[in-house]
Amino acid sequence: MQDDAPREIEALIDLMARLPGLGPRSARRAVLTLLKKRGQLMAPLAQAMANVALNARDCVICGNIGTADRCAICADDRRAIPEICVVEDVADLWAMERAGVFKGRYHVLGGTLSALDGIGPEDLRIPHLAARVRDEGVAEIILALNATVDGQTTAHYIADSLSGAGVAITSLAQGVPIGGELDYLDDGTIGAALRARKRF
Amino acid sequence: MQDDAPREIEALIDLMARLPGLGPRSARRAVLTLLKKRGQLMAPLAQAMANVALNARDCVICGNIGTADRCAICADDRRAIPEICVVEDVADLWAMERAGVFKGRYHVLGGTLSALDGIGPEDLRIPHLAARVRDEGVAEIILALNATVDGQTTAHYIADSLSGAGVAITSLAQGVPIGGELDYLDDGTIGAALRARKRF
Ligand SMILES: [Zn+2]
Ligand SMILES: [Zn+2]
Repeated sequence: MQDDAPREIEALIDLMARLPGLGPRSARRAVLTLLKKRGQLMAPLAQAMANVALNARDCVICGNIGTADRCAICADDRRAIPEICVVEDVADLWAMERAGVFKGRYHVLGGTLSALDGIGPEDLRIPHLAARVRDEGVAEIILALNATVDGQTTAHYIADSLSGAGVAITSLAQGVPIGGELDYLDDGTIGAALRARKRF
Repeated sequence: MQDDAPREIEALIDLMARLPGLGPRSARRAVLTLLKKRGQLMAPLAQAMANVALNARDCVICGNIGTADRCAICADDRRAIPEICVVEDVADLWAMERAGVFKGRYHVLGGTLSALDGIGPEDLRIPHLAARVRDEGVAEIILALNATVDGQTTAHYIADSLSGAGVAITSLAQGVPIGGELDYLDDGTIGAALRARKRF
């Protein structure tokens, strides 16, 4: 990159450009905004980021990100119901929590099985899930994986591997999203919704 | 916002969402990437940002942002030619520097005149420009303001205010950008390019 901004500022732009959704151009614009708001925005943001970088850790039980060895959900006794919701990623856990409908605890896999990328069960938190089912007296595993090929492959693998564990295994219903227009849905969604049709 | 991520992480997402180009949703995605790359990306980014927040300052001469009272350009004797390029914003200065064609120094106005927003000459660095013309023996002022109504109003105001100062006042040529297709250009650009047409 040409030396058009001071070296420290270029270094900051280069790091910002590694964030998803920000290319070199928008990273430059973002840094310029930060430079103009050094006191109100840049200093607090640097502080908040350093704070999280220092304090964030993966929950040893579920893989969620929190600020202690156990995340707030695993530490909350009210959530000790015998149901575990399995998600691919912390972002999916956050989405479930925003929906506010699941009252139990989670298990974050940290990805999906992928032959292409060489990701096997041991690379995810799948063995740990079997241990939790055994140790925590879990009655139901709710598979909330993405409706992608890899997500569904992973769901089938988990269902198979837990088939002898005496636990009910369910998955989120597939269908037309609330407010969804058929015209804008892919064929797979429409097919799944048709197969899962209910008496009106 | 619902308490779906820990408080410290929500605070970080809220600050990130104030950057241009990042809404709440993409700020959340960006923070999730940072959380996954705590060591390689988040900690260095926090450090780079704190460093710039602490060290960046406005050049007392031209208004560029650097890391000393005088920016690198004002401190560079090779750029002491009697031409000053006037730009609205530091981003425009960076764009000029990337082009690498101007060898003199700059004057960053910090915005444009705007009756609507109540921004007058004293709110910009216009009085300071007149002082520089007087004190630095400037022969030419190149107005590199945006081709917007406010940019051009500001250019005319500066040209008027310096009319008795014995300095040549020029502005960037308007026309079809390199690689520009007429079909995609606005009418104003085509009109300006036609009026400024040259013998082929
Ligand atoms: Zn947990
Ligand atoms: Zn300067």
